[in-house]
Parts: sequence; C-alpha cells; structure tokens
Amino acid sequence: MSFARTGEQGTRRLQASLSRHSLSACRNASRQVHIRALSSAPGHVDETTRRRPRTVFSGIQPTGIPHLGNYLGALSNWVQLQSKAEPDDELIFSIVGYHALTLPQDPKALRSSRTDMLAVLLAIGLDPQRSIIFHQDENPHHTELAWILNCLCSVGRLRRMTTWKSRLATSRNVNEESEVDESLLNAGLFTYPVLQAADILLYKATHVPVGEDQKQHLELCRDLADIFNRTFKARNPLFPLPEHIFTPSKRILSLKDPSSKMSKSAPDAQSRILMTDTATQIKSKIKSAVTDSVPGITYDPISRPGTANLLDMFGACTNENPADIAKRYEGKGHGALKVDVADAVEELLKGPRAELERIRQEKGYLLNIAEDGASRARERSEATMREVKIRVGLA
Amino acid sequence: MSFARTGEQGTRRLQASLSRHSLSACRNASRQVHIRALSSAPGHVDETTRRRPRTVFSGIQPTGIPHLGNYLGALSNWVQLQSKAEPDDELIFSIVGYHALTLPQDPKALRSSRTDMLAVLLAIGLDPQRSIIFHQDENPHHTELAWILNCLCSVGRLRRMTTWKSRLATSRNVNEESEVDESLLNAGLFTYPVLQAADILLYKATHVPVGEDQKQHLELCRDLADIFNRTFKARNPLFPLPEHIFTPSKRILSLKDPSSKMSKSAPDAQSRILMTDTATQIKSKIKSAVTDSVPGITYDPISRPGTANLLDMFGACTNENPADIAKRYEGKGHGALKVDVADAVEELLKGPRAELERIRQEKGYLLNIAEDGASRARERSEATMREVKIRVGLA
Repeated sequence: MSFARTGEQGTRRLQASLSRHSLSACRNASRQVHIRALSSAPGHVDETTRRRPRTVFSGIQPTGIPHLGNYLGALSNWVQLQSKAEPDDELIFSIVGYHALTLPQDPKALRSSRTDMLAVLLAIGLDPQRSIIFHQDENPHHTELAWILNCLCSVGRLRRMTTWKSRLATSRNVNEESEVDESLLNAGLFTYPVLQAADILLYKATHVPVGEDQKQHLELCRDLADIFNRTFKARNPLFPLPEHIFTPSKRILSLKDPSSKMSKSAPDAQSRILMTDTATQIKSKIKSAVTDSVPGITYDPISRPGTANLLDMFGACTNENPADIAKRYEGKGHGALKVDVADAVEELLKGPRAELERIRQEKGYLLNIAEDGASRARERSEATMREVKIRVGLA
Repeated sequence: MSFARTGEQGTRRLQASLSRHSLSACRNASRQVHIRALSSAPGHVDETTRRRPRTVFSGIQPTGIPHLGNYLGALSNWVQLQSKAEPDDELIFSIVGYHALTLPQDPKALRSSRTDMLAVLLAIGLDPQRSIIFHQDENPHHTELAWILNCLCSVGRLRRMTTWKSRLATSRNVNEESEVDESLLNAGLFTYPVLQAADILLYKATHVPVGEDQKQHLELCRDLADIFNRTFKARNPLFPLPEHIFTPSKRILSLKDPSSKMSKSAPDAQSRILMTDTATQIKSKIKSAVTDSVPGITYDPISRPGTANLLDMFGACTNENPADIAKRYEGKGHGALKVDVADAVEELLKGPRAELERIRQEKGYLLNIAEDGASRARERSEATMREVKIRVGLA
C-alpha cells in the first residue's frame, strides 16, 4: 500500500502482477475455496493449486492533484491490479484522509484535494462497480480498530519505525533525517502505522501493494494481526496475515534537479508535470528539463540522471525498456528526445486529463460515488468489528 | 472524571457540589443563555449572574462489581451530581470499555463487567431519563476524535504524563513506579489521555469531576481543546475548555492492610466490601478488619490508620465528621465500633444491592437502556464530529 502523499512519496513504481505464490499463511479461513485453472496452465484444473480469492487493499493520501511520479508509481498500478484481478478477487482502494492529518494541512486545500483525488481515481480507470473506492474518514471503524490495535502495540516497536522521521524530514524540506526536530512529532504521526494496520485488517485484506519504504509498516501489520489472533484465540484466527505485493521502485525525478524525486512541494513548479497539465505545459516543462552536456543519448542513471529520467518517463509511458529506447536515439540530441518524451507523456495523460476535467465538474456524481463507496466499505468492516468486539469482550 | 478502574483507582471521594465560578472561559458559545436565580439568592434574578447550562461528563471503567471504595468515591458522587443539577444541565455518564483495553483483560470477565457496571449505575440511582448513560465502545466517534486530537498532541507531552506508570504499577501489584517494566507500555496506554480528552470534548462538556490523580489529564484535555480552537479557527471556538469539579479525595483503605487502598485485585477478598456483599458478609469482613491495640477510639489517620478507616467509612455512610463520631466512641472498644460501622454500611448498601440484584436479571431491559443511551450519545457527538470534520477539511 502506498499511503503516499501524492507529492512526496508516491513515486514508487509498483509492479502490477500479483504474486502467485502460496497463500496458505494468509488465507481467510472462513473463505470458500474455488477451483480454477491457473493462467499458466490454461484449461487444466489442478486440485493441488486451488486458488483462493484475494482481497487487495491500498490507500493514498489526498494531497493535491497527482503528478507524473504519482501516476506512474502507485496510481496506474491500481488500475492494472483491477484489470488483472480474477472475478472473485476484491479490490478496496481508500483515500486516507485521516493519515493526511499527521502533518499540518490547510483545511481548504485538504477539502478540495479530497474530492480531486476521488475524481482522479475514477478518471484513470478505477471502476466503482468493480472496486470499493471510498474515503477512509467516512468509515469510523478505521479509528476504532486502530485503538484496539494500539492496545496491542508496544511503544518501543513504534519508536523503531523510521518512516515518521523521513516524513517529518520531507515535510520540512530537509534531506537529512538527523536535522528533523523531534519536538514536531505528534502522537498521530507516531502511531500512524497502527492506523495503517487497521485500514488493512478491517477488510481482512490478503494482499497489499507497498513500496520499499512502507515495507516495515506491513511487517508491523502482520505482527499486530498475529498478536491479535494469539491474544484473542478462537476456533479460527480472525485476521489473515496480509501478503506483500512487492514492486521494485522506479523513481521519477525532478525535471529541474535530477538528484531528487519529482515532488509536489518543490518550489519550482516547472520541476513536475501534473495530471492536469495541458499538452503545451507538458512540452514546455520537458523542453526545459535539466539534462547534461554529453553528446548523444545513453541510458546511465548514475552519471546522466537527467537524461536517464527522460528515458525512464518515456519507457514508463510506452512500456519499453529505457535502455532500448536510448539505442534508438544514440546519434540524436536531447532536443529530439525531449520532443518525443513530451509526445509520449501527452499521449499517456490526455485521456485521464480529459476525463478528470469532466468528472471534477460533476459534484453530485462524485458525492454519490463517495457515499456508495463508504457505505460498501462500512458494511464490510462492520462485520469485522462485530467479530473483533466479541473476541476482546466488548460485545 | 474518574475513568477509574473500579478496583484500583476509584476510591477518590468527589465532592458533589458544582463549582459556581465563572464559566466565561468554557462556555459553549452556541448555547442559549438562561436567566435564573442563583441558589444563594433565592427569588432574585440578577442580570450579571446569568447562569449558563452545564454539560457534565464522567466515565468509569467496566472492571467488575464496584467495592465500597468505588461507591463512596466516584459513583455516589455521580448520583449527587444528578440530583443537584439544574433542569437545563446535561449529564453524560460513560462506561469506558475502550480504556479498559489499555491493560490486559479477560474477554469473558470484561463482557460481564460491562453489563454489570451498567446495572450498578442504574441501581445506585442514575436515571436514564435524566442522564445519558452509555457504553463508550458503542459510539465510534470517540476514537475518531481521539485520532484527530492525536495529530495535535506532541509525543513529548504524553511522555511527561505520570499516570501510565502508576497504572502499570497498580496492574502489576508493585508499589514503586520505578519497578515498572516500561516494555509493557503499549500505544493505547500511552495515548489514553488523548482518548479521554476526546470523550469529554465530543460532548462539549463544560464540567468534569476528576480525582487528583487525573488532574493532569484534564489539563491536557483543556490544552488540546485550545490547540484545536486556535489551529482550526472560525467565528467561534469549537470546544469549551472544560472546568474541573474538584473533590478532595477520601481514600477508603483495605480492611486487611490499612497502608494501602481498598482494591479489587488484592489477593485477600476479606480486604474489601463489594456492592453485592450480604449483611452477613459485611459484618464478618468488618469484624475481622485490622485496627490496632490502642484502647479506646480516637480519629488519628497517621498513627491509627485502621481505626481511622472504620471511622471514615462510618462518616461517609452517615454524612458525619469522622472525628465527631470518634468522640461518641471514646470510652468504647473496637468491637462496639465495628458493629455500628457494619450496620451503617449495610444500611447504605442494602437498597442499591437489592436493586442491583433485580436489574442484573433483566437482560432485555439493560440492553434497551444501553441501546437508547448509545443512540442519544451518538446523536450528540455526531453534531460535534460534523463541525470538527468541516474545520479540519475532511468535509
């Protein structure tokens, strides 16, 4: 799960393919087992490889219109997850407003980001008929389960988490975590991995796409699920231990400073391409992208990061290997490359952009989608909370 | 607010009289102002002393049948608060199940304690028509607001709270806080003062009865209300800063070891009188109470703690000064005193005990009362949460 602030940490590239390995450790014991041919053996039903339906959960913070890094990272991956899912898989995508509060927010900006993010998810192709798409802050079960998990989570364990430091560092625009002023740490930021665990366990998710930086949070989630299952034993463990859908991260870099990630909060707006940028804006931003003065095009992320970043963006848009693209441009200059990268980015973004502009106007539709998603989410989590309360003795 | 575990920390004597001083700092700005004669000036309406309606909130943990210390401490005080309240005052009493989870609980015991505590509150005279009586864990707004307040509360501030240490110490039956193993500290116990603040602010409580040991929590609650009001400014501050209804604490001591408080968890059941004890049990426990070998009866809590404890219990039952009682028994022995103390305690407890036995059988009635209370509580807190979410930008 990314739980990314779109501007800061959403630039991980998440591979879309679901891992196909054993689910035995994480199955929901009450689930029905389906027999189905695996895709690798079409038409052949193998009793030993019965596949169990998956529940995929992921969340994203509502912090403004996503940029290209966010889109090529988490968001486009969600669409792939949806299109590759089996019919009995469940997909749950949440806009995690409560997580956004762990760093200071302008309420007005947060309010519109919240709605914009929903519009973005629909615009890029998430289907509210197929997936549950909802605002976390419209389902109070999240904080209820988080409280119960808080009571099972040692303070020492949270202290060892490193993400709150990097979040504080990012929010203050400092590069060194040692520069972070710990007095800024609030109890929300300190305990947000517990809320994240609640987000996942509330739906008994079996699979969670996460970037490398969030891997320790998923470990905590698995541990809390395990502690709960052992502390409040019954015939069956309540929570499956969610599996990681791991995805090697491809970072899209700033167009102005290829030593850092593309970021929403960088002062120079030319350093990022937003999902709402026009073809002209895209062209202009890419044209002025910082590269290098080496003649010809080669793919060398270490010594030619700006050039490699253009090739990475190109490859991500066209689904090609950046090194292969580089070969096509060997004898050409940055100018020619930039024109084609801008075209590729425009080709990628124009559909979602048009759709986003359309959907953003339809306030009533967005409200309906949000209400319907929240109601479906609450219905799912209500069942879990009923079981949780019985086990802990509060019902 | 006691938020007492009945067995451990509920032995504070809370004076029932509401403090009459200025409410200007803590008024709910949207409240209607009523003009009414103050009790000190009957019949006389003074424009300068308009009294504003109060909202009193208090909570108690569901941890078994209360003992005499709990009853003479928090519980009987709630009844007095109810009987002395003005018609437009609101009284909200909560059984705080979520707080109980901050220390390990046996789910089965917790489940019956939860229902028993509701029966106790009704048996001692709390009126569900007059007061809102409800289970905290049946209103998810508590954890929602707690999350938002967590994001405004520094970890350093929570670290300076001393109560989690004493709670851990009490739960482990160690007397020295330095003996407490900090690795046992969970994030629930660490952040429970924030949940407590949410409990209070959710109803915009103006008055909170608390013992001395909880005073720092009320201070935190006021600070969080103030931080919220300043961070999310609007025409009016959202939360009143709740006032303290302070009550000098009268500790009822163990009948077997007058150096410690009467406690639910002490190994010797003879050391405490439960609200369900029969007349015979009360007589026998008081008869075997540890006193001293000094002849005659004097009130000297320092050098004669066991004798003073009997006089304190006596005085609390009959509403007399323990030193005055001592004078009546000057020439008599412990035997005579004990007989009369036992009679006084029986006189105090027999009504609530009979009522408790009756109500405990009426499962359907208890369920209805719980449902009705939770629904009234949710209706109140729903309005607050709507305002909160608008201010922070989540609606």
